[in-house]
Amino acid sequence: MRLLPAPTWRLARLPAADAQPVSEYWIHAVVPGAVQLDWARAHGWPDLNFGQNVAAYDGLEDFFWLYRTIVPAATLAPGERLVLAGAGLDYHAEFRLDGRPVLTHTGLQTPFELDLTDAAPGATLDILIHPAPKRPGAPADRAQASATAKPPVSYGWDWHPRLIPLGLSEDLRFEVRPAAHLRHVDFTYALAEDFSAAEITVSVETSEPAGYTWTLRDPDGQRVLSASTSASTSTATLATPRLWWTHDQGKPALYTLEVALDAPGADTLTRRVGFRRVRLVMHEGAWAHPIGLPKSRSHPPITLELNGRRLFALGTNWINPDIFPGRITAETYRPLLALARDAHFNLLRCWGGAPVAKESFFEQCDALGLLVWQEFPLACNRYPDDPAYLADLDRESRAIIRRVRQHPCLALWCGGNELFNSWGGMDDQSHALRMLGRNCFDLDRHTPFLSTSPLDGMAHGDYRFRTPDGRDVFQIFQQSAYTAYPEFGCPGPSPADYLRIIIPAAELWPPRPGTSWETHHAFKVWSPDPNYWINLSAITHYFGEPASLEQLTALGEWLQCEGYKSIYEEARRQHPKCSMALNWCYNECWPCAANNSLINFPASPKPAYFAVREACRPALASARIPKFQWSPGESFTAELWLLNTASAPQPAGEVVATLEHDGVSTELLRWSFPVLADRRNLAGPSVRCALPAAPRAAEFTLRLRVVGRPDLDSAYRLGLRLPEAPPEPAPAAAPALNR
Amino acid sequence: MRLLPAPTWRLARLPAADAQPVSEYWIHAVVPGAVQLDWARAHGWPDLNFGQNVAAYDGLEDFFWLYRTIVPAATLAPGERLVLAGAGLDYHAEFRLDGRPVLTHTGLQTPFELDLTDAAPGATLDILIHPAPKRPGAPADRAQASATAKPPVSYGWDWHPRLIPLGLSEDLRFEVRPAAHLRHVDFTYALAEDFSAAEITVSVETSEPAGYTWTLRDPDGQRVLSASTSASTSTATLATPRLWWTHDQGKPALYTLEVALDAPGADTLTRRVGFRRVRLVMHEGAWAHPIGLPKSRSHPPITLELNGRRLFALGTNWINPDIFPGRITAETYRPLLALARDAHFNLLRCWGGAPVAKESFFEQCDALGLLVWQEFPLACNRYPDDPAYLADLDRESRAIIRRVRQHPCLALWCGGNELFNSWGGMDDQSHALRMLGRNCFDLDRHTPFLSTSPLDGMAHGDYRFRTPDGRDVFQIFQQSAYTAYPEFGCPGPSPADYLRIIIPAAELWPPRPGTSWETHHAFKVWSPDPNYWINLSAITHYFGEPASLEQLTALGEWLQCEGYKSIYEEARRQHPKCSMALNWCYNECWPCAANNSLINFPASPKPAYFAVREACRPALASARIPKFQWSPGESFTAELWLLNTASAPQPAGEVVATLEHDGVSTELLRWSFPVLADRRNLAGPSVRCALPAAPRAAEFTLRLRVVGRPDLDSAYRLGLRLPEAPPEPAPAAAPALNR
Repeated sequence: MRLLPAPTWRLARLPAADAQPVSEYWIHAVVPGAVQLDWARAHGWPDLNFGQNVAAYDGLEDFFWLYRTIVPAATLAPGERLVLAGAGLDYHAEFRLDGRPVLTHTGLQTPFELDLTDAAPGATLDILIHPAPKRPGAPADRAQASATAKPPVSYGWDWHPRLIPLGLSEDLRFEVRPAAHLRHVDFTYALAEDFSAAEITVSVETSEPAGYTWTLRDPDGQRVLSASTSASTSTATLATPRLWWTHDQGKPALYTLEVALDAPGADTLTRRVGFRRVRLVMHEGAWAHPIGLPKSRSHPPITLELNGRRLFALGTNWINPDIFPGRITAETYRPLLALARDAHFNLLRCWGGAPVAKESFFEQCDALGLLVWQEFPLACNRYPDDPAYLADLDRESRAIIRRVRQHPCLALWCGGNELFNSWGGMDDQSHALRMLGRNCFDLDRHTPFLSTSPLDGMAHGDYRFRTPDGRDVFQIFQQSAYTAYPEFGCPGPSPADYLRIIIPAAELWPPRPGTSWETHHAFKVWSPDPNYWINLSAITHYFGEPASLEQLTALGEWLQCEGYKSIYEEARRQHPKCSMALNWCYNECWPCAANNSLINFPASPKPAYFAVREACRPALASARIPKFQWSPGESFTAELWLLNTASAPQPAGEVVATLEHDGVSTELLRWSFPVLADRRNLAGPSVRCALPAAPRAAEFTLRLRVVGRPDLDSAYRLGLRLPEAPPEPAPAAAPALNR
Repeated sequence: MRLLPAPTWRLARLPAADAQPVSEYWIHAVVPGAVQLDWARAHGWPDLNFGQNVAAYDGLEDFFWLYRTIVPAATLAPGERLVLAGAGLDYHAEFRLDGRPVLTHTGLQTPFELDLTDAAPGATLDILIHPAPKRPGAPADRAQASATAKPPVSYGWDWHPRLIPLGLSEDLRFEVRPAAHLRHVDFTYALAEDFSAAEITVSVETSEPAGYTWTLRDPDGQRVLSASTSASTSTATLATPRLWWTHDQGKPALYTLEVALDAPGADTLTRRVGFRRVRLVMHEGAWAHPIGLPKSRSHPPITLELNGRRLFALGTNWINPDIFPGRITAETYRPLLALARDAHFNLLRCWGGAPVAKESFFEQCDALGLLVWQEFPLACNRYPDDPAYLADLDRESRAIIRRVRQHPCLALWCGGNELFNSWGGMDDQSHALRMLGRNCFDLDRHTPFLSTSPLDGMAHGDYRFRTPDGRDVFQIFQQSAYTAYPEFGCPGPSPADYLRIIIPAAELWPPRPGTSWETHHAFKVWSPDPNYWINLSAITHYFGEPASLEQLTALGEWLQCEGYKSIYEEARRQHPKCSMALNWCYNECWPCAANNSLINFPASPKPAYFAVREACRPALASARIPKFQWSPGESFTAELWLLNTASAPQPAGEVVATLEHDGVSTELLRWSFPVLADRRNLAGPSVRCALPAAPRAAEFTLRLRVVGRPDLDSAYRLGLRLPEAPPEPAPAAAPALNR
């Protein structure tokens, strides 16, 4: 197979499908890309990430857009064919050759091909992109996205502007293919129950009957299996396969599969593969509930078991790292995934509102030892039982499954986000979810499937540091008892230096609704409190009104750091009933002024990232602290714990707990703990002491030191309400900053 | 198509598959039937229903059984074929023609065919039935049934003896078929959202290409549609179809479909069809729960919506009406289904432990206006992800769906009974259930599918009148709040006259474990209390030790009647959150000495049947009574309600509540109630009065009279603990009768 040089593409915006482009309409197009990016570039629009510039993009998705190029000249040997091959496009297009219809295609995830062998070199190839699909009559928000499987996030979310990309967003290549070439290769295997062997099946689809040789090399590059055949499937047994593990439990062993056609000029396919078994299992003690009669069902399983070993899943919710799929490359993913690995995460939930990531994402997760929970493109909408919608989802979902099932990093499939809640409004009988279950069973039954998240026993939220009823995040999660927390958030402003880049200086202080702060999601993202993401209500409650941008962000970061630590560690303490903690969310698709994220767009870790990284260490000393803010003289108490999600036991040792305040450090207790088994926690004693009656600083720190094991040390920076602090604002009054 | 006279079948019991039958082995066989029935008949065994006679049958299922007949002589016109056609068999068999293997078949529900056109008349046709499948290593109980889709109930249940039928249990016919004949006809339709039209599709599979004419006649016999075609599918639109309704909501309108091949000698297929739309929908208010964050999912929908109208499902759990499927005919079903209709039931749950019923069952339900919840043959077992098991279930389930989906009575599919509880041990990831979901979606997606029962929000049980913690059935259900009660039981002894027929006179009194009482399920059916089904603990607690069989059964019937009434009426009062009440169980497969059933084997209604019939009247006055037994002088109270599940409102009126005791009737209050909307309840005032301080009888009655509407009257016969009653037995001591 030969790749031809990428041709030049032109683009014209058309008011109607049958409008004729005139010469002055044409602009230069970048493929892969998006019509909005080309348009903005051609018209010299300012950076969309700055201020309120994004508003200009609204409505571009309602036009028809015509891409035009010419059929490249190619010297074809006998039997060779010239093919335009695409990995998908955004979202519906008609293809024309010298004005003659030759293909229609729908779908971001569904590959397509157009045979151009018989086309004259230089012939005009047009691709007419239709307006973005919108459900007729739906309000101008995510509800419009329920007509197709186009990912809903771009229709507007609480951290994504309304900007609906459109165009040739995916890989698009002019290829010269020999008569005999590989069309599709599937590598599947069945692991013996004791993992002693893998029964391998290699399925090869060729353009015409042809012999081929496949070879499997182990992680050291040694050839371990090889077979030559012309059958469409070929099986072999691999003894004692090296298993693929998440990085925290072992090594993500990757084998290399090579498939070479026995034909002149044929290319070789090379793919990394891995052997692992993922199951969802019931947690210890699950079958004992519910108790008594009448009796309902036991909770569905959500504990991940990898290669027979139960994991505590620590991770995060991955969202699209760019508004425009067409701009995303392997380099977009690389720093983000390296940071995820460094944060000790072992599971990424790829949220259903966003497009399914490209191959390079899964390849990097394979190599890094990160498991992936992959959702289909449904989120928070009522997707109908309508045949046209179902046909679209059927096609897109099958393409997604066929592609992603090849990756050992794949942990589970999920129908989409929050579909069984009131704002989703779907239920177990919804045809879309029954169909996705059918497709996953037909195409990848050995990977678990969830209809949606949350299911019974699991829960999403909270996303607030402090609720109107006066509970803080420490209390909320200590009062919860779920099997998994696949989403929870702790919001806050972005760092001050970051804010200065995206918000015009005149709007920077004080932050107000109606300004770029709101455009970048600091305000009015979530009713009923317009201040949730910037977290102003909580900051003001604990510390009074901040006096400067620096004070606001410093206080917000403090709350976000301690809040996130408290949730991750509490979820870990709730093991084994609980086995999963994934914060909402990891990254950003554009710069947010305030968000629950750990990493600012494109890959800038916030202080919260480092706090979460501390809380997700495989082993650590931990404290269950009843609340964030205390009063002078109050009796402080906290339970001491040792947490261990690692695959190895931790040796016996000693924890020294100290309280630090106003520069004074007081030892509270010493706890000699025994050997801590792998993937087990240990509850220890509680500290108890009176806090200073007349403190100077509005904070104190509980420090846990593990003698000789500084890698297990922990510290908690807590609030102390000084007598001179302003009185708590009346609940009904909004903080002054928001008036 | 011509049916040949049924041939004579012989049967031999063999110790091994390759054993040669000798002449003295042969016995006469009845087909359809069961090897056990033939064996017992041939050997003059006494009635299996009597005493402990059933014990003799144990182990017969572990032999090979050889059925033998001869190929009948048939005069075949050119193109005609002689075929042996079976609707299924129990459970695995090899077919041989003059000793030569010609077919193997597995499955009770999967049809099979053997073409005998080229066989010599008089040739020996052997069908070798293999031993009943049993999971290797499993204990001798229902766990053995998890190896195949053979229904588990016969492996032993708390109301079914261990007796595992085997043999030619289903219809088996020698047919002469013309060259062109109908192989399969599917009738499907899509109803317009407003029910104004039905888009009909008739799919016809013929043995060879042939034209055909299909005709649809309305319930009055008028031809409303007709088409002649040779296409395999044919579509047409029926305007304003008369809808199929349950008997309580309307008329079960049945159309008649006739399909006639345009070929000489071809038969006409005639089938009753109906138009209805069944959905499961969320109950009113369901989306408001759960409240707060972290938030789990809302409960799955379980409210039946028929033709756009939400129903309260009142019904029962249907079990196999005979141990032997081969004995069941339309006449077996007829009296039972007529009684179900008369009891105002609108939903039968066909429980997954039992075989799926025969066509005549569904035809009668179609005609009577009874909805059917149909389960697949899985119950209370952990069915494995094993490919051999899954292949068996796949085949059987597809046959079941293809057959039953044709019936308008079908309300929903369910994977099986109690699979997501500890004793089932399956979960949402189990391949068997994912596969059943797939098959139902592929073959009948417009009928709802549940993985199992109970699901989240629903509950099974309780099955006790009184629990060890001292709560009675009134209290248990008033303290419950589920969306559906698809199983609950109230046990008790069978009537005395019935017991005399099945239990030897010498064992009749007192009832003891180890006797025929235990064989017929009165004892040791459910740990930890060995007396649950006979309900001795509760009877003794309330009334002291019964002195005679008549006293035992009279007291047991009283508790069963009032217990069942209290549950059905309480479930109805919990509408709209709750929308379903189905008692466990309706009927029996053989005579039970004690059971939760309403009808003794084969079709003898117990007093509880009549009590339930009262509680399931479409409209009635009802009382929420806090408990069953009261003390002299105690303050009695009860909430008055009006219940209405009917499709029509009830006019305004007046309820007169009276208390009757020792022959004295005291009016407690009069309640003038307004018009009661259709399918709505109305809560009224509470009565309150002091009970007599020195009563003579150990009972009193609360009577609700609706002026001028005796059809709405209700009465509750309650217990009064007399001073002279024996003291409550110490909890640890078993009642004397059981020692």
